[in-house]
Amino acid sequence: MKKKVNKGGSALKIIPLGGLEQIGMNITAFEYEDSIIVVDCGLSFPADDMLGIDLVIPDVSYLKDNIDRVKGFVITHGHEDHIGAIPYVFKEVNVPLYATRLTMGIIEHKLEEHGMTNLVRRKVIKFGQSINLGQFRIEFIKTNHSIVDAAALAIYSPAGIVVHTGDFKVDYTPVYGDAIDLQRFAEIGKKGVLALLCDSTNAERPGFTPSERTLGKTFDAMFEDHKDTRIFVATFASNVDRVQQIINTAYKFGRKVAVEGRSMVNIIETAKALGCISIPENTLIDLDEMRNHPKEKQVIITTGSQGESMAALSRMASNMHRKINIGAGDTVIFSSSPIPGNEKSVTRIINELLQKGADVIFQDAHVSGHACQEEIKLIYTLVQPKYSIPVHGEYKHLMAQAKIAEELGIPKQNIFILNSGDVIELSDDKAAKVTGRVTTGAILVDGLGVGDVGNVVLRDRQHLAQDGIIIVVMGIEKEQGILVSGPELVSRGFVYVRESDELLDEAYHVVDDAIQRCLDRGLTDWNKLKTTTRDVLGDFVWKKTKRRPMILPIIIDL
Amino acid sequence: MKKKVNKGGSALKIIPLGGLEQIGMNITAFEYEDSIIVVDCGLSFPADDMLGIDLVIPDVSYLKDNIDRVKGFVITHGHEDHIGAIPYVFKEVNVPLYATRLTMGIIEHKLEEHGMTNLVRRKVIKFGQSINLGQFRIEFIKTNHSIVDAAALAIYSPAGIVVHTGDFKVDYTPVYGDAIDLQRFAEIGKKGVLALLCDSTNAERPGFTPSERTLGKTFDAMFEDHKDTRIFVATFASNVDRVQQIINTAYKFGRKVAVEGRSMVNIIETAKALGCISIPENTLIDLDEMRNHPKEKQVIITTGSQGESMAALSRMASNMHRKINIGAGDTVIFSSSPIPGNEKSVTRIINELLQKGADVIFQDAHVSGHACQEEIKLIYTLVQPKYSIPVHGEYKHLMAQAKIAEELGIPKQNIFILNSGDVIELSDDKAAKVTGRVTTGAILVDGLGVGDVGNVVLRDRQHLAQDGIIIVVMGIEKEQGILVSGPELVSRGFVYVRESDELLDEAYHVVDDAIQRCLDRGLTDWNKLKTTTRDVLGDFVWKKTKRRPMILPIIIDL
Repeated sequence: MKKKVNKGGSALKIIPLGGLEQIGMNITAFEYEDSIIVVDCGLSFPADDMLGIDLVIPDVSYLKDNIDRVKGFVITHGHEDHIGAIPYVFKEVNVPLYATRLTMGIIEHKLEEHGMTNLVRRKVIKFGQSINLGQFRIEFIKTNHSIVDAAALAIYSPAGIVVHTGDFKVDYTPVYGDAIDLQRFAEIGKKGVLALLCDSTNAERPGFTPSERTLGKTFDAMFEDHKDTRIFVATFASNVDRVQQIINTAYKFGRKVAVEGRSMVNIIETAKALGCISIPENTLIDLDEMRNHPKEKQVIITTGSQGESMAALSRMASNMHRKINIGAGDTVIFSSSPIPGNEKSVTRIINELLQKGADVIFQDAHVSGHACQEEIKLIYTLVQPKYSIPVHGEYKHLMAQAKIAEELGIPKQNIFILNSGDVIELSDDKAAKVTGRVTTGAILVDGLGVGDVGNVVLRDRQHLAQDGIIIVVMGIEKEQGILVSGPELVSRGFVYVRESDELLDEAYHVVDDAIQRCLDRGLTDWNKLKTTTRDVLGDFVWKKTKRRPMILPIIIDL
Repeated sequence: MKKKVNKGGSALKIIPLGGLEQIGMNITAFEYEDSIIVVDCGLSFPADDMLGIDLVIPDVSYLKDNIDRVKGFVITHGHEDHIGAIPYVFKEVNVPLYATRLTMGIIEHKLEEHGMTNLVRRKVIKFGQSINLGQFRIEFIKTNHSIVDAAALAIYSPAGIVVHTGDFKVDYTPVYGDAIDLQRFAEIGKKGVLALLCDSTNAERPGFTPSERTLGKTFDAMFEDHKDTRIFVATFASNVDRVQQIINTAYKFGRKVAVEGRSMVNIIETAKALGCISIPENTLIDLDEMRNHPKEKQVIITTGSQGESMAALSRMASNMHRKINIGAGDTVIFSSSPIPGNEKSVTRIINELLQKGADVIFQDAHVSGHACQEEIKLIYTLVQPKYSIPVHGEYKHLMAQAKIAEELGIPKQNIFILNSGDVIELSDDKAAKVTGRVTTGAILVDGLGVGDVGNVVLRDRQHLAQDGIIIVVMGIEKEQGILVSGPELVSRGFVYVRESDELLDEAYHVVDDAIQRCLDRGLTDWNKLKTTTRDVLGDFVWKKTKRRPMILPIIIDL
């Protein structure tokens, strides 16, 4: 019937506004005629060369330009790379927001921090429930992930059904709630699915991701082996099921539990309020109360498993925590694996803990939240999409999923690895095609500034970071072109000044000579004077030190 | 007999001057009465927060202060973390240098680059040969490693024998030369060994490191699978055996080989001259000549397997290489694994290559050059040392070896995890003990400057990198305390100035008001004026932007 309605009708457009080419910043627009809906609104963390940047959010110019057609945002789950840009984007694109319970709880906390609680219209959706947004109907389907209440989406449009898995794994024995609703994936598959957008994070890994529940036994064994020590467990702040299992084991062993790290405390509070975590009475106590219990009856669950220098674990490891220091007689379990790029900082903190005499366990206490190859195959086989659009991953992950899709019989020309900004048009009767591009980009957030740091500023920061700066100040009487004051050379981040008198003295003379010569020749174009200063001083410094500090001439007219 | 000689004699001191607490910068002094010998003289690469630093060398004050007693340097093998500091250290500690053939060849190239060829007395030593240096005799023992001609050392002193493995693995079927001289390790062990200093790099890994030779078959299979494409192989510049095997396979498949990347070209030249690599005639050609051969008959061996942005592979991947670009129809084999900390940059280049349409193989084409747990056990069992001093690794690696030593029956009190600078005293009749500390440290090399960048400069660079700088210039007539010119505000790396007129305008007024108020009050202490400027502008900027740029007031007396 759907097909008939759409005979000769419009195509469905899918437009990723971020999330490809990198991990993070997931946001994808779905467009059919006068209706646009957006799936997720994530941030990404700055690349190594984005000096001083706190976080990165997507450029949503396309949504702003089409604001009249944007019907709402649907959010798959509560991780930063799917919700983190909401407070920024919703200042400009304020439309209704839909999410499941815990996801909404976390979003609400975030809005509160930005003083935006009353500004965003929002609605909590149950699994199996659908919402109508313009020409779209969106159904939330239960999945499993490393955060509770993760959803896949079935997006019904006049042009056909698209299934978006969100971030998922297949967990037959989840810690909280039901297993992924495989029956529903099958039912929708039976109806005929136009396209599948599937999580690629683990597409390079063969096999099946183990159930979260397998860690229960792991924790039991580790606690059994360390009966006489205080135990710290570092894990991801948002992994409520993980915290649940640590608490279960702690309770079995008669230990008290405290949670440390602001982000984790917040999420556990939210999860408790919503009943997503069940804590036996008198088990969770305040960190301050821990001193009333013997060390071997304590468990501290903490953030900082990625070696983040400001997180609770780092502070506890380096005696910079107000309340607790980790040392000899403590056991630290890393219930996590390093996110790519964090290997070195994780290793740094492991070494630090070992040196302080702590026992450190950094293997076997973690399972992934993302589907491996066999799970991806399962979803493809249930959904049987016409088109495959791998999402959520670096290019190599997307490629790995594309290969799986091909192995499963999807024709190569029906598999699309998109770039952010690509507009792909899908319909049941014409071959899918990338038909255009929209503006996308990364907007840098630094402190309160959103977008005021761009390439120019970043390049300057990189330059300053590399070799520092030399400032040359000169006061010139303009009428007669006489150097009245200076040149004064001030440097920062270049050399240790007290031990480089001679070098800086020589540099002064080089600049002074050059300026005098210019002025003697009657030069009155200050820009030329600045260029000369930069050139002669730059050459001199390079010859002497093989460094290229930023050189900043400042002329004061007198 | 030795024991008798030393009855009541002095103790042997072992003093690591670097190489513990980090990977790299290996240098260890051995001291007996009037004799000091030094094993290795390596550099380390800068940590992430050492902005603008090129490399890091050890502080050898202890050797300079005891120069009369320093008899010579013995070098275990030609990797940068064992030889890289030679050109710097030998400017100050010029004593004879001993190494095996290829190691010396690489050192000589390095000395040449620094114009020091004639300044350093040096001697090539053969395996099995010994040299006498003061009260020490040092024997070079054949081992296997990821570079040809690696040696372990037996260090004979009146207080006993110490065995230093250098970096090693056990390769029963090496590509070039003999297997590790296990018989000699056993013989020396029979004599009675006081202490073993053993490579800890892979002490966390169970089992045995596979033979380098296993890769020959791997390359054969990969070349067989990619008969129709040009093949690039990225690997470590100094792994001559690896290059040999790639050339062997290329020759089998009738392909021509070119080597790209300055460091690799240099080492292959040296290895060729010394006969450490054998290249069939007409196989190795110049990169320029490649154009005369069809693509499927080409192999390019290149540096850059760690994703280094300036290395040949990166340049070929991003169209920045003068001669060759990698694209569709090319196969790139990473014959390497990422060194910790390089994971992200390796992934970046893999994604880049895949996006350009190249086929990328980044698994199964590498074996480690370091001993795993079973090999470490083998050496301990042959050498049977009284004392165990794990070396070469981060703290967690040293700990892992200590655990192995304990499992093998070495009493816990005979296992020493040292810090750089520790002086451990060993003798046959008294219990070993750390008895003192000497000065050690990391000296930063930036361009031509050695040690002129210290903590102050680094802190400034970090500050500049984070939020940039605002310079405030004011010309003041000192006699009357009148602001004649300015304040002029100039910023770099702070905000994009063209779009922040208003903010900078407000900032100007804040500073101007504060200065005027100071001058009106008759303030003539320019330091106070600068402090006030820093405070008011800092507060204003923080309130407005939540950033803390460096604020640099410059006052010009007029």
